[in-house]
Amino acid sequence: VSADEFERIERFFAPLAGPEAAGLADDVALLAPPAGRELVIKTDTIVEGVHYLPDDPPDLVARKLLRVNLSDLAAKGAEPLGYVLDLTLPDRCGDDWLEAFCRGLAEDQRAFGFSLFGGDSARTTGPAVLSATLLGGVASGGIPRRGGARLGDYLCVTGTLGDAALGLAVLRGELPGLDAADRTYLADRYRLPQPRLGEGRRLAPLVHAMMDVSDGLVQDAGHICKASSLAAVIELEALPLSPAARRAVKAEPDRIQLALGGGDDYELLCTAATLPEGVTVIGRCVAGSGVTVVDRAGKEVLVASPGYRHF
Amino acid sequence: VSADEFERIERFFAPLAGPEAAGLADDVALLAPPAGRELVIKTDTIVEGVHYLPDDPPDLVARKLLRVNLSDLAAKGAEPLGYVLDLTLPDRCGDDWLEAFCRGLAEDQRAFGFSLFGGDSARTTGPAVLSATLLGGVASGGIPRRGGARLGDYLCVTGTLGDAALGLAVLRGELPGLDAADRTYLADRYRLPQPRLGEGRRLAPLVHAMMDVSDGLVQDAGHICKASSLAAVIELEALPLSPAARRAVKAEPDRIQLALGGGDDYELLCTAATLPEGVTVIGRCVAGSGVTVVDRAGKEVLVASPGYRHF
Repeated sequence: VSADEFERIERFFAPLAGPEAAGLADDVALLAPPAGRELVIKTDTIVEGVHYLPDDPPDLVARKLLRVNLSDLAAKGAEPLGYVLDLTLPDRCGDDWLEAFCRGLAEDQRAFGFSLFGGDSARTTGPAVLSATLLGGVASGGIPRRGGARLGDYLCVTGTLGDAALGLAVLRGELPGLDAADRTYLADRYRLPQPRLGEGRRLAPLVHAMMDVSDGLVQDAGHICKASSLAAVIELEALPLSPAARRAVKAEPDRIQLALGGGDDYELLCTAATLPEGVTVIGRCVAGSGVTVVDRAGKEVLVASPGYRHF
Repeated sequence: VSADEFERIERFFAPLAGPEAAGLADDVALLAPPAGRELVIKTDTIVEGVHYLPDDPPDLVARKLLRVNLSDLAAKGAEPLGYVLDLTLPDRCGDDWLEAFCRGLAEDQRAFGFSLFGGDSARTTGPAVLSATLLGGVASGGIPRRGGARLGDYLCVTGTLGDAALGLAVLRGELPGLDAADRTYLADRYRLPQPRLGEGRRLAPLVHAMMDVSDGLVQDAGHICKASSLAAVIELEALPLSPAARRAVKAEPDRIQLALGGGDDYELLCTAATLPEGVTVIGRCVAGSGVTVVDRAGKEVLVASPGYRHF
């Protein structure tokens, strides 16, 4: 720990710290778990040039790092308590970068009600590597796992699908025909995921299996199927699309593939015997293995690239 | 998550996973905190070429990563429960590297009784970045902090000081006069820290402040002083040295500086009003600020490089 590092901790990170961190003046954080709650733990690493671009605004990078983890907490019905942060930065990420990055952290800590428990920082000659480990609280006695789906369950999602993948296409200049409002809407959906924490807490007691859609609908439904030893049939016509996505698909019908295979939507995918409110049924859990997508006529639709990755 | 990554998780990480990880088949780990215990959380990042060398045996790198965190848990009287791991590796760290790395993790999980909760992995074009976040359990109601030292407290340490810094000198070929057994002993002390978990649990209820000696005695005593708004006087003659260190210092008296400023010993430094068993008194907490080292005659000894770092 150098003098520089102390100064950086004091200036940038101490304002983010919760009471568990004891002002970041000790070596450890101390957490008294809320009574009757279990802890959900989730970690995620993002790498400059792989998961985000060097020129991306640091505050958005910070918020995305937190939100991909918050989305996993949402899928277990948990509320966020706090997190630890491991930042490995090249020299070119100086105080300006760090200030903007921490502004993004602060914004989302406020928005979702949790705080920094502790962390570590290091230097690298390579690209920046950012890891966050989130801790959440959840009611004791069973959380919805990937492997809990049952034969005959409805397969459901929150919100709309494909927006993030279409948003990336917008940012790449691939959808020039779309009007400006639609382009902005879709790009925002890509830039800043909305973790469905409220929906997750409401749905958790009502569903058999739940996870967030981060790799793409077909791939993520496949994870539930595999862990539950079941198959799923998804109806293409049932996929919930935003008005902007609907217009993009109307202009070029093949773009519906982005709702099947595009990642980063961060909606919740769940299965339930009784349909919960506020979700869209997109299919059923059936005997067998794997995920099949069918059109209105019941004919199988080829999925172009399950688990389509952004870079 | 690519097919390769699933295979790696299955092959290398699933065998390390505890029941909290649910076979690493879900997105999160679920921990029911032991009744009446609080959680201690500690994270640490090490970077190839900064904290270890590219040619270091991967199993030793893994064990050192765990042990520097275990040492912080020890200093709070906590026992380890489990950890999450974030591995960002260059392509050159392939399956052979990972297999050896995981062998080291498994060895220390067995030695210290804890398991893997979860993790994430990513690729980098730069040096490897390895982060571990450990969770420990500790009796509710107060752990020894840095800031708990009181006026008049004894300043005490477990074990012996300076061995790790001398061990690094051995590995650099700087102590050719020492006999082979001493060289091996010192090098081992540098290569593989021994987290003082048992001593920490025993000492925690008996001390006012405690931390591990990782940056070097004088710097770490300074942390306790600063957090406690006190000063400390350390007696050079009182420093506990191993027989090997004693011989190295006898051959060249200046090497005593490595017991004052050399890092990586991972012994426990504590303060107490009543002397606990099994520690060595090295000084006292007095009014003022800062750390002074004095010789037998009470004359101040200049400390060459507080917080001496290894690379």
